[in-house]
Amino acid sequence: MKAVGINGYGTIGKRVADAVSAQDDMKIVGVTKRTPNFEAKRAVELGYDIYMSAPDRENLFEEADIPVKGTINDLYDKVDVIVDCTPGGVGAKNMADYEKAGVKGIFQGGEKHDQIGRSFNSFSNFKESVGADFTRVVSCNTTGLCRTLNPIKELAGINKVRAVMVRRGADPGQVNKGPINSIVPNPPTVPSHHGPDVQTVMKGLKITTMAILVPTTLMHQHNLMVELDSSVSVDDVLDVLEKTPRVIPVEASSGLGSTAEIMEFAKDLGRPRGDLFEIAVWKESLNIVDNELFYMQAIHQESDVVPENVDAIRAMLEMETDPQKSIAKTNKNMGIIG
Amino acid sequence: MKAVGINGYGTIGKRVADAVSAQDDMKIVGVTKRTPNFEAKRAVELGYDIYMSAPDRENLFEEADIPVKGTINDLYDKVDVIVDCTPGGVGAKNMADYEKAGVKGIFQGGEKHDQIGRSFNSFSNFKESVGADFTRVVSCNTTGLCRTLNPIKELAGINKVRAVMVRRGADPGQVNKGPINSIVPNPPTVPSHHGPDVQTVMKGLKITTMAILVPTTLMHQHNLMVELDSSVSVDDVLDVLEKTPRVIPVEASSGLGSTAEIMEFAKDLGRPRGDLFEIAVWKESLNIVDNELFYMQAIHQESDVVPENVDAIRAMLEMETDPQKSIAKTNKNMGIIG
Repeated sequence: MKAVGINGYGTIGKRVADAVSAQDDMKIVGVTKRTPNFEAKRAVELGYDIYMSAPDRENLFEEADIPVKGTINDLYDKVDVIVDCTPGGVGAKNMADYEKAGVKGIFQGGEKHDQIGRSFNSFSNFKESVGADFTRVVSCNTTGLCRTLNPIKELAGINKVRAVMVRRGADPGQVNKGPINSIVPNPPTVPSHHGPDVQTVMKGLKITTMAILVPTTLMHQHNLMVELDSSVSVDDVLDVLEKTPRVIPVEASSGLGSTAEIMEFAKDLGRPRGDLFEIAVWKESLNIVDNELFYMQAIHQESDVVPENVDAIRAMLEMETDPQKSIAKTNKNMGIIG
Repeated sequence: MKAVGINGYGTIGKRVADAVSAQDDMKIVGVTKRTPNFEAKRAVELGYDIYMSAPDRENLFEEADIPVKGTINDLYDKVDVIVDCTPGGVGAKNMADYEKAGVKGIFQGGEKHDQIGRSFNSFSNFKESVGADFTRVVSCNTTGLCRTLNPIKELAGINKVRAVMVRRGADPGQVNKGPINSIVPNPPTVPSHHGPDVQTVMKGLKITTMAILVPTTLMHQHNLMVELDSSVSVDDVLDVLEKTPRVIPVEASSGLGSTAEIMEFAKDLGRPRGDLFEIAVWKESLNIVDNELFYMQAIHQESDVVPENVDAIRAMLEMETDPQKSIAKTNKNMGIIG
């Protein structure tokens, strides 16, 4: 039973904690919080030990009546790996501390590949992180692109990918972010960083991405144009996507014509927090014109990387070297249907 | 002085009425309303004669204290052309009435090309509508695509266009439409109708489009990927767009990084209703990779087709046969800067 610590029990951290707890070969031994907010209270109720990520804040936690086990330095001794779920840009600064404490570290897509030195996607390059000290699970958008581009590449080969990423402006709980009523090219330059980020795990793939922010909180949406190497049919593509774990083809015609309806579907499935760990691909959008595949997909930004974090733990701690076995195990324990 | 009637004094109709009134070679002799709402009251204040588009509604207008000059049948005798600005799908049904009354008719992009038999864009195919009885000004999105694709085609030739259209969910005044917090593939199939619609005026252009609705009311946003025939530089493209009428390159770095800020800019210009008749192209988005041009643009859906309606009147009534002269005249009288 491997021991896992979460640094940063926020949007991603709390989900990774629950996903790790659902496995039979790893457990959470502690999570860190900087602020004694509602998430900290809930962590206590769920039985997670809390460690303060910043020193000299005992008074705050005491006032909030939230028991703490110590600081993050006390947590290092108890873990085999820290999953760093701190805000983007903070994780890389923590890396030196992990190194000094002699613990392995998994970072999120908010960190830069070059700073961590290695990136991870379960389907694209699991083996590159086997036994590694540090790796970075690519961002929710990049994870979504890899999930569907990998099987398509295996099926037909890919000459070139163009993708336009329509991103949610903020997560549901982020009340201080926009936009409220605007479309924001983000970045206003082409290509966006998503293409190069895919290339950190799908080496050599030709891909150009454009990205905008829109006033919604639920999911990202991707529009993909994929020039194929060999000739296949739409049915061939649909067939391979149906069989791909963590990908679910959905039908607009069955009432799943938008990101809002897809989130409603995830709630009906009884998912924790209404999460959809799978990438939803609209069946109707699949089309091939002049050997170019077009499709649209939806990404639940708060949760799609969670199973990848579990797989990354197994790779780094050499608990499993076969990606398919780890993916299957993670999925089964998390109740992933796709 | 040619006499113009507007059938349907709503979002587009009221703008076309004002644009026609701003010209020195045509005038509005009447507008139709079905309902005596605030727009009808304002039309009276602006000096437009009102005709009822449906019979047996005198009581409604009387109760609202809005004077009417008669029904639409009374208007036919007074006009050289009717600009039909009724809701999408209604215009085509009116065509037989116009034919019977012996008046020419201009329709909007909500009607189907096949039903009207001819489509119009000032820059693409002005001459095809010279002397015609009926034509259709292509939709706001299609107009926006033509505005920038035409000069790029003239500059470098176009092999193939891919475009992802991020559409506003509703106009600002449409309180009963969505989405509020969702991204909606619309249609969920590929290609969307926009590509074929461009081909009604830019014959033979290879173009594939994908379209989604997002929760914003201000503008549409387009993401374009244009494979060029010949090698040009980004500066060449920017130079030609700077010189193209009704196109304005804007800089995200100067505070115009979103559709909301661009609309604020239009208000600062003192435009009527805060309209932006020009297509705004983000300078920073222009890039050429492997002879493929990428760029992003914003479309003010309520107003970009308005100057095209004025040009269409000149073409159909043979007041001008040179598109550039009509465009320049329309622009000068409307205060269009681009």
